[in-house]
Amino acid sequence: MSSKPSIPKGTRDFTPAEVAKRDYIFNTIRTVFNRYGYAPIETPAYELLETLTGKYGEEGDKLMFKILPRGEKLTNFLQNSTHKPALSGIVEEALRYDLTVPFARFVVQHQNELTFPFKRYQIQPVWRADKPQKGRYREFYQCDVDVIGSKSLLNEVELIQIITNVFEKLGLKDVVIKLNNRKLLSAIAQYVNAPDKLMDITIAFDKIDKIGLDKVKEELKNKGLSSESIDKLKVFLELKGNNEEKLKVLTSCFQNIEDGQKGLSEINEIFRYTQSLNIHNVELDISLARGLNYYTGAIFEVKTPHFPSSICGGGRYDDLTGIFGLKDMSGVGISFGADRIYDVLEQLRLFPQETVSTTDVLFVNFSEEDTLPLLPYVQQLRAQNISVEIYPDADKLKKQFKYADQKKIKWVVMVGSNERQSNVWKIKNMISGEEKNSSFEELISLIKSA
Amino acid sequence: MSSKPSIPKGTRDFTPAEVAKRDYIFNTIRTVFNRYGYAPIETPAYELLETLTGKYGEEGDKLMFKILPRGEKLTNFLQNSTHKPALSGIVEEALRYDLTVPFARFVVQHQNELTFPFKRYQIQPVWRADKPQKGRYREFYQCDVDVIGSKSLLNEVELIQIITNVFEKLGLKDVVIKLNNRKLLSAIAQYVNAPDKLMDITIAFDKIDKIGLDKVKEELKNKGLSSESIDKLKVFLELKGNNEEKLKVLTSCFQNIEDGQKGLSEINEIFRYTQSLNIHNVELDISLARGLNYYTGAIFEVKTPHFPSSICGGGRYDDLTGIFGLKDMSGVGISFGADRIYDVLEQLRLFPQETVSTTDVLFVNFSEEDTLPLLPYVQQLRAQNISVEIYPDADKLKKQFKYADQKKIKWVVMVGSNERQSNVWKIKNMISGEEKNSSFEELISLIKSA
Repeated sequence: MSSKPSIPKGTRDFTPAEVAKRDYIFNTIRTVFNRYGYAPIETPAYELLETLTGKYGEEGDKLMFKILPRGEKLTNFLQNSTHKPALSGIVEEALRYDLTVPFARFVVQHQNELTFPFKRYQIQPVWRADKPQKGRYREFYQCDVDVIGSKSLLNEVELIQIITNVFEKLGLKDVVIKLNNRKLLSAIAQYVNAPDKLMDITIAFDKIDKIGLDKVKEELKNKGLSSESIDKLKVFLELKGNNEEKLKVLTSCFQNIEDGQKGLSEINEIFRYTQSLNIHNVELDISLARGLNYYTGAIFEVKTPHFPSSICGGGRYDDLTGIFGLKDMSGVGISFGADRIYDVLEQLRLFPQETVSTTDVLFVNFSEEDTLPLLPYVQQLRAQNISVEIYPDADKLKKQFKYADQKKIKWVVMVGSNERQSNVWKIKNMISGEEKNSSFEELISLIKSA
Repeated sequence: MSSKPSIPKGTRDFTPAEVAKRDYIFNTIRTVFNRYGYAPIETPAYELLETLTGKYGEEGDKLMFKILPRGEKLTNFLQNSTHKPALSGIVEEALRYDLTVPFARFVVQHQNELTFPFKRYQIQPVWRADKPQKGRYREFYQCDVDVIGSKSLLNEVELIQIITNVFEKLGLKDVVIKLNNRKLLSAIAQYVNAPDKLMDITIAFDKIDKIGLDKVKEELKNKGLSSESIDKLKVFLELKGNNEEKLKVLTSCFQNIEDGQKGLSEINEIFRYTQSLNIHNVELDISLARGLNYYTGAIFEVKTPHFPSSICGGGRYDDLTGIFGLKDMSGVGISFGADRIYDVLEQLRLFPQETVSTTDVLFVNFSEEDTLPLLPYVQQLRAQNISVEIYPDADKLKKQFKYADQKKIKWVVMVGSNERQSNVWKIKNMISGEEKNSSFEELISLIKSA
């Protein structure tokens, strides 16, 4: 243990400067959520395994951090050689894999204490044992905002407003809000006479950008889609233009498909609202599917040219709480990827200078005897919401100034007992280099006015 | 999975009201920490097992949440029956058990990026598989503040000031800050001619309140302490009075014991400072030991008559980072028990009314067509930092008012298209029951002035 210690692969330490920047993102998001009447909840870091298992597909079950059983359970297992392969059977707990499933569990468990429509947000870390790579961590924060118990499209509009407000406040221009609707995807599958191939078609759609049109067609053929179906799919695979143009094509395709008409009516309604709100960066994108497992209506994703994957996403799910026994609870929500947003803001240098809150004033320590009478003065400054340190040791001045410098402390106060008694306080502005003698009262106003 | 879902034993969900109260505590503590120039860091929820193992005694190793190995590691283990008992050998990660050991690991790992003395705070959850009971959870928050790299007693004084400020701000009166020094405990063991029995003596001291003087003496006898030693211990076991009286007794006992003189000089120095700062609730308590494993100087504990155990505690450790290979780094720190403080504030009803931030204004939804032109008005209010909701569905008025009532929303605005066009907005104060017609501009000032 005398080698240099480290942390697990895919996890991170955060220094004060990083914590400050992360808090800036969280606080911005939180402020916007509050403005729209969403309230925060928190759930435990680990849930019962049965709450999580099977909710994220096979991949999810594999990447979940499970907790080793303790005590007798483990001892019995280890002693009983015949039952060994049943280890999974004695695992009872696993770390949170996302915030949506715990939210559904929370709603069902606390349904009698909640006011519906229930508007909640949740900003907490989640854990996934993914292969760590640039920008992908095993411990990362999600910032989820959802409303459950209302089918109104006003909620979808509100989420688009929230997205707009958050990125405006963060100074991130040129974000695009991609919008789709699960009903349109169903309609496409029906239109090409392959309603049972909905999943394959949407997965293929999702890949166009990555592997290109020809490869996508090939994949669909391998999945058993007839060449007739693939031909009919062409109009969607090649759908181009602005929202109006796209909607026109879709409207003519879906004249006799109920799902299609419903989906289009929802999309149109949302656009009617966003236009009246002067939000013009919402883009219909029928290739958007986002896993699809629980979305039933709107599907959202926010992209920026400065990051390869989405920085926010979500959608409507008509029966999320059904898995926990509470039927007919329609909900819609989105999740902001704080870690990705961090990378984008860092890259574009969008973090405001003042993010890093540091000490305002350092009092130089000339000698131990000198510090005792200084403390009440220091307390006066702190009572005025000024952050103050006394350097704890009577080290060389050079070392103390270096400390102030490295911590980016703006003011250094140097006062010995004589000066203090004659109320002459020497104060140095570490940014301008200026030094000044002033009374204690002047010193307070100087610091406060800066 | 259709039975009502639940969460693991010893964990908790937090509703919006609870989150708000917890945030009130965290923010109060954070503000004070910042005022003294401490900066926040964060570490991963789980650490390498080797970082944590052996740092918390046998009990700690047992109560640690270990993470189940994944993938090939686990498969190989399960397939290889002869190596089964070595499961512990393939476990690589465990959840954080406290914030002190991760802090020590952080300091050593990042030593070249840090400015010393390094003043950090850390507010994060920790996990311990303790038997859950009232007030004791398996997931709970610690709020740690430490300075490392300075031996000055000014740091101890600063921590006492921080404790005083935090509990003042929280409105918690009658807290007592108990102070001891590991050197006094060593001196006692030397005074009774049993320096090797230091641990047994301090454990016995810790128990006086619980089991009484006679039982303590019996225990010490069983531990092999001679009756002569036990007799000499009497003066300490029965030490009473105010700080001055206690110090007088100790001073006369420790005339020829170096550790004792050093400890007393440190205690006296701290008292000299606290008196000049008008802090009078610091109490010398030589029975205070707090596990003792790494404390080498001052030991702190904060007690309130409203809670059975301490609500804050800590001390100085001269070689905390030594376990990770960085020698000669003296540090001192304390940890606030946020969950215990929560229980105390709740019990004494000390949470301020405004803690629960809720929606300020609810706009009634009369019909879908009516909401579209309302949205820009709602946005105007939000831009003024007012939290506003539009009820998303055109439900019965009664239901919408019930919603406002349950969410404790202060203002309800009722406006149809006619009223909006003639700029007559009906607003109801849900607390007083008063209703008023006003222009939109008046409505804004009304809400903002309230």
